[in-house]
Amino acid sequence: MIKMYDLAGADENRRFSPYCWRIRMALAHKGLDVECLPWHFTEKDKIKFSGQERVPVLIDGINTVSDSWEIAKYLESAYRQSPSLKLDNGEVLFIKFWSETVLHPVILEMIVLEIHNNLSPEDQSYFRESREKKFGKPLEEVVANQQESLTRMQKLLKPLRSTLSKQVFLSGKTPGFSDYIVFGAFQWARCMSGFSILDTDDIVYKWRDKMLNMHEGLALSTVGYPV
Amino acid sequence: MIKMYDLAGADENRRFSPYCWRIRMALAHKGLDVECLPWHFTEKDKIKFSGQERVPVLIDGINTVSDSWEIAKYLESAYRQSPSLKLDNGEVLFIKFWSETVLHPVILEMIVLEIHNNLSPEDQSYFRESREKKFGKPLEEVVANQQESLTRMQKLLKPLRSTLSKQVFLSGKTPGFSDYIVFGAFQWARCMSGFSILDTDDIVYKWRDKMLNMHEGLALSTVGYPV
Repeated sequence: MIKMYDLAGADENRRFSPYCWRIRMALAHKGLDVECLPWHFTEKDKIKFSGQERVPVLIDGINTVSDSWEIAKYLESAYRQSPSLKLDNGEVLFIKFWSETVLHPVILEMIVLEIHNNLSPEDQSYFRESREKKFGKPLEEVVANQQESLTRMQKLLKPLRSTLSKQVFLSGKTPGFSDYIVFGAFQWARCMSGFSILDTDDIVYKWRDKMLNMHEGLALSTVGYPV
Repeated sequence: MIKMYDLAGADENRRFSPYCWRIRMALAHKGLDVECLPWHFTEKDKIKFSGQERVPVLIDGINTVSDSWEIAKYLESAYRQSPSLKLDNGEVLFIKFWSETVLHPVILEMIVLEIHNNLSPEDQSYFRESREKKFGKPLEEVVANQQESLTRMQKLLKPLRSTLSKQVFLSGKTPGFSDYIVFGAFQWARCMSGFSILDTDDIVYKWRDKMLNMHEGLALSTVGYPV
């Protein structure tokens, strides 16, 4: 069976990486079973064999693949017969970078302290130190502007909201990797934070609900917050 | 031959609408000839037959189609044998909304006064009044913050820049309607304003250069500024 190193919190069943969620959804999309091995930020040694220090790391027989984008490409080419992730749509790469450089940063501002609080003790010190260095201030100060960040995020969601008001999925009539990429960001928040970032009457909330329920409720049944 | 009502400045050869440019590029992509009829903002009567008040309006035999998105869909279905605009990629709709709600507004802030100055006298009063109402201040005051707008735009281009550093076109190995949509925004600026918004060493500039030169230099040969 395919194995994947998957970022975990203090509770090993709290799996929260947006990059890992992309791949878990992509695997389910392709009907592939996977054994997800819990991994913590400070367990760099455990994945040293992959030649780098981040998850997801996928092991499929003799193949080891890291980086979520490379893993998606690998799955698409190794499992051609299974439903396509529609990676041939060039625009998916734009969605990836939009998600990572626009959506992730503003979500992080709102949930960074709760991420910290949900990590194992060893990971907490690593996380606090590295993130406070990036932000240039204590995590408590970052989240003090949570409401302002939320207002900003709501504005940044405009193109996503408009798209989903015209078609069911970002990828069109059926979900594709672009949906899993953006969903990963919201699932990251939902797994680690009780702060409600989407209104229930927002079309983005309704789309996220579809994503949570698909593939037999894979993303809904994980440890997270009811937001 | 296909005809299209195309937004023009005081100089009738200055065709500057980002929405019209999408379609001119799409028509060239499909190898279709078009006669572009100059049209001014205040000539609502001229396109009344289309049932609405904006350009582009396309006339192809007995078919009249307005709205650039509808026109693209029309061309794709009426000219199936010609190269595809790749409108089936669901993510193109996101690119459209990103372009219209993120890129257009920040570009407009920089060029709105020059747009005004390049319009016919009748259009100038209409344009100034309607745009000053939207901005809530004189056009001269809007462009006073040009440099600050430019800095903001450079930041907003991040996902586009990252995408184009990994693949030749937004749509992948070959251009698609998503490229024409985003190009339309830059061409709008280039046709109306001498303010340089892209550095020559920016990958976005290099991509724009490819777009300007394709289809026998269609977009390069039009009346505009050498920026």
